[in-house]
Amino acid sequence: MKIGVFDSGLGGLTVVRELRRLCSSEEIIYLGDTARVPYGIRSDQVVQQYAHECATFLLKQQVDIVVVACNTVSAVAIEQLKLDFTVPVFGVIEPGAEEAVRISEGKPIGVLGTFATVESGAYGRAIVKLGSKQVLESQAAPLLVPLVEEGWIAGEVPRQVIRRYLEPLLRKNIRALILGCTHYPLLKELIEAELKQLSKTPVTVVDSGIALAENLRQYIQNGTPGALEEVTGEPITGRGKLSVYVTDTPRRFKTLAEKFLGEQIGNIEAIKLV
Amino acid sequence: MKIGVFDSGLGGLTVVRELRRLCSSEEIIYLGDTARVPYGIRSDQVVQQYAHECATFLLKQQVDIVVVACNTVSAVAIEQLKLDFTVPVFGVIEPGAEEAVRISEGKPIGVLGTFATVESGAYGRAIVKLGSKQVLESQAAPLLVPLVEEGWIAGEVPRQVIRRYLEPLLRKNIRALILGCTHYPLLKELIEAELKQLSKTPVTVVDSGIALAENLRQYIQNGTPGALEEVTGEPITGRGKLSVYVTDTPRRFKTLAEKFLGEQIGNIEAIKLV
Repeated sequence: MKIGVFDSGLGGLTVVRELRRLCSSEEIIYLGDTARVPYGIRSDQVVQQYAHECATFLLKQQVDIVVVACNTVSAVAIEQLKLDFTVPVFGVIEPGAEEAVRISEGKPIGVLGTFATVESGAYGRAIVKLGSKQVLESQAAPLLVPLVEEGWIAGEVPRQVIRRYLEPLLRKNIRALILGCTHYPLLKELIEAELKQLSKTPVTVVDSGIALAENLRQYIQNGTPGALEEVTGEPITGRGKLSVYVTDTPRRFKTLAEKFLGEQIGNIEAIKLV
Repeated sequence: MKIGVFDSGLGGLTVVRELRRLCSSEEIIYLGDTARVPYGIRSDQVVQQYAHECATFLLKQQVDIVVVACNTVSAVAIEQLKLDFTVPVFGVIEPGAEEAVRISEGKPIGVLGTFATVESGAYGRAIVKLGSKQVLESQAAPLLVPLVEEGWIAGEVPRQVIRRYLEPLLRKNIRALILGCTHYPLLKELIEAELKQLSKTPVTVVDSGIALAENLRQYIQNGTPGALEEVTGEPITGRGKLSVYVTDTPRRFKTLAEKFLGEQIGNIEAIKLV
């Protein structure tokens, strides 16, 4: 099966990392819209247009599934994408919400995300859709992305920034904390350490990317049509092919990409969407 | 005279603020390419393309001068813009460099900027072009823009971030510090306070936007063609008209725009460049 994954930038490679761990033999085509990153500060309408263009590119590469490895797009554009295209479209919001509900025993859930994700109210809607009446506390955390992109993920400054974003959530006694942005897994250790410091009761961190990869693994294993093994009859051994496309080759992008992916990338191809 | 000003986003409004102070009766048309901000992380080629599109829009509004209120564009695209268009094109790099050389008595000069501005080496070239042999020490400061955009411009976190960026410059005994990004003037007080704390010898902060506005005031007063007073014969009293265009209407953009401009904005119009 060919899985198409896109994100506004390179952060979605943290989702690809989980996909390659849990669905290791599948072919993955990744597109990072690095010429127009970040989406999290833009209007819904512009995000929807950009997302449509990204998905169109992936479908031209004949992918069987589109994975939206971007919380902002999952929050404001996924319903439109599901209407626009016939292939299955997976986002990060629903799996993240599901996992948070599963582990939090009816207690309040917190989420950190971009302005766009928080203002969309998408995690709250997903929790309601699951039939849960749990309270969701949201906190926009705009400094975390630039901290990660600068590689400043340890020490006093990121600790204080994280603390500032966690405190309002902890005052609401959250039991689970959703990392509502694909950049945040690189700060997971520091966030967990601060939660331990600041909270009397344990708070479990939910990585939406891991939750999504787990969902996709189950979807593929349930014998969905198009799995490459079934089509060609050939057994797949080892890791599937990974192709990475970007819309611009910005400064330090390869170093950053490999940090998110957790492995070396052979070739990154620059393409134009419009 | 109609002055066209553009920037990758809203930060260039700090330059407009100075223009409205020093060239108060001129009409100003501002374009912020908010759909594609920030430019500072993109390749030179993409920045050049975006800059060309911005300038083309301003010229369609019949401006007499184009002001590039963006260090990144001034650093990597201004020579191309000067070739592409016949109207005078003003950038922020040369005036900033000039002012820094003027006040620093041959001692080393420091500059804070985006990755793109720093890597371009544009301030260094501008200093050489002025016939100065002064050393320039550059420091990329990628967290300052998100701090300003979040409005987090006082307190321990911005202080520590600023300190981290200043320390390597101060080890080189700089005498002047150029604020090489239009967002930074909002952090000027804090930067000046930290310089006082950290440096034995006084360091003067140079705001490239103020230096540019001063240059432009002189250019206009020197009786350059096209000044509206001369064309119509009508005296201009009070403040010139200000029109603000953006390519996307992102979250909190009006609040942010007014913070940069230092006054209320009547109407902001969203347009499409491509």
